[in-house]
Amino acid sequence: MANLFLDACANRPVSRTPVWLMRQAGRYMAEYRAIRERYDFWTVCRTPELAAEVTLQPIAALAPDAAILFSDILVVLPPMGLSVDFSPGPVIARPVRTTDDIHQLTTFDVHRELGFVFDALRMVRRSLAPEVALIGFGGAPLTLAAYMVEGGKTKNFEALKSLFYARPEAAHGLLDFLVDVQADFLCAQIDAGAQAIQIFDTWAGSMPRDIIAEFVIPKVASLVARVKKSGVPVIYFMKDAAHVLDLLAQTGADVLSLDEKTPLDIAAARIGGHVALQGNFDPAVLLADRETISQRLDALLATVPPGRGHIFNLGHGVLPSTPVENVAWLIAQVKRRSAR
Amino acid sequence: MANLFLDACANRPVSRTPVWLMRQAGRYMAEYRAIRERYDFWTVCRTPELAAEVTLQPIAALAPDAAILFSDILVVLPPMGLSVDFSPGPVIARPVRTTDDIHQLTTFDVHRELGFVFDALRMVRRSLAPEVALIGFGGAPLTLAAYMVEGGKTKNFEALKSLFYARPEAAHGLLDFLVDVQADFLCAQIDAGAQAIQIFDTWAGSMPRDIIAEFVIPKVASLVARVKKSGVPVIYFMKDAAHVLDLLAQTGADVLSLDEKTPLDIAAARIGGHVALQGNFDPAVLLADRETISQRLDALLATVPPGRGHIFNLGHGVLPSTPVENVAWLIAQVKRRSAR
Repeated sequence: MANLFLDACANRPVSRTPVWLMRQAGRYMAEYRAIRERYDFWTVCRTPELAAEVTLQPIAALAPDAAILFSDILVVLPPMGLSVDFSPGPVIARPVRTTDDIHQLTTFDVHRELGFVFDALRMVRRSLAPEVALIGFGGAPLTLAAYMVEGGKTKNFEALKSLFYARPEAAHGLLDFLVDVQADFLCAQIDAGAQAIQIFDTWAGSMPRDIIAEFVIPKVASLVARVKKSGVPVIYFMKDAAHVLDLLAQTGADVLSLDEKTPLDIAAARIGGHVALQGNFDPAVLLADRETISQRLDALLATVPPGRGHIFNLGHGVLPSTPVENVAWLIAQVKRRSAR
Repeated sequence: MANLFLDACANRPVSRTPVWLMRQAGRYMAEYRAIRERYDFWTVCRTPELAAEVTLQPIAALAPDAAILFSDILVVLPPMGLSVDFSPGPVIARPVRTTDDIHQLTTFDVHRELGFVFDALRMVRRSLAPEVALIGFGGAPLTLAAYMVEGGKTKNFEALKSLFYARPEAAHGLLDFLVDVQADFLCAQIDAGAQAIQIFDTWAGSMPRDIIAEFVIPKVASLVARVKKSGVPVIYFMKDAAHVLDLLAQTGADVLSLDEKTPLDIAAARIGGHVALQGNFDPAVLLADRETISQRLDALLATVPPGRGHIFNLGHGVLPSTPVENVAWLIAQVKRRSAR
């Protein structure tokens, strides 16, 4: 069955560009805020009915070509033995700092501990029209490690970088553990109905190139290889990757998702190969008027390199202050203006 | 008179690599903390005796090859009519948002309004040995505009990007105004004894490439040209510039300062030309042991491209948690290991 999103992931020709938006379910939508007035973030993530409902809200309202499960990359931390609170950013009560801390992280049965994720995926898949793809996701090893080691968001990554610089063996051990956890978790999402997987690497691009070459690319490549055995496409999104574009194809991902910093044609030339691209509209453009949005959309579509699949998306998530009518209009315009 | 720092800025041969560190005066030093226990940040900036004392603290303790005036890029805001508080990050009480706000910004006589900066420079120059260079500095137009429009630090630059996307003419007006202010300010610093100028562009690298091409490079080039008429070298530091390295030489700066993301040899190939380079040691390495620091230092020195001047510096400022003895040791090692 033809599916625009899956066709683009595989570099197959499509009648128009498929489109979905990172954080298409979120605070900019009144339906989402109504749910969040009654339930906290973690409760929504962990309650399959709520996660499924929130996942489907933008599908009904905005008609993108893919749904991505509403969840959080940090759902894997509590089963490892790390408690996570959101206040509103994530706070890990006892960060992982020593080699002992790393050894004390526990492996776990993803089906027993994270059943709410798989239940939500099954519910969403049952409600989706066949032409809408369902995307599962998880955090990349370095990004998960960043939260675990730093204990939350950070500007300078002092603890994480100290691990890389002064105790590289311990860092490799932690990252390899996370590859194992994520391979199990993502493959189980595929079993539950995910038709593609996006790996989010929010913080890897904050590292210098040599750290990325040693601690990011080989780990992601190992994870991607294990996920691809399940036969679904893998999208890898490293934010702020301009200094390592030429390394990204080594991950083996089917699709590279790019932020808004570099135009797609320039990025593609540095990436090389034939990997499909996802992105990279600046979410801040959605705060402007429609004429500006149109101009920027046409400019982006003109940068899509020929011969590569392209999935329209933002450079990062929808900003909470975005007018929902601009998002609806953008998605409709992508469909119309990209039609071949 | 031979001056290693000035020789390196001009791509002249040097007997060893000159070294100074961004934020070499700061919280990691007990002498600095002692001053700050008695005076707030703004008072230190605005009192020439205190600014000069803090500027000279690392010169006495660590013997770098250059002193940079202790001050803040936002000293130019109050004379324009914008009050700034630090709590601890900068907060601008009434951000610049409308075209009217931009028109209400006032030009001012830098000598009358910012005399404390020039007095401090004269005091420092009198106390410095002739072989130590004195660097003046200021903010680049976009970075100043970011604070003025957003009202402080921001993650997504929603207000600033809205200006660029939806009201580009107003944005050009604001940036051109800032070029004028900064040209006067930086030239007056040179008159007061600054032997080089560093232009800090902390936030430009957070913008997409097309915004940088339109709103950053031409404005910085105009500013650099006006400063260079005074006959001193100009260093331009755009943080997170990996996606626009090939545009940086168009600024006309004598020296490009680079963050730690891209090794110097790879960066130089993308920059092209013959501009000298400054950087780009990861400040987080200074949290590690000396063996690690040594290895990383040797690795950095091996990436310096032949034929270009090189000034050793960090990729960004010294982290407040850095052990001061590691900084002293790094500076001594740079001098020793780079000797030709």
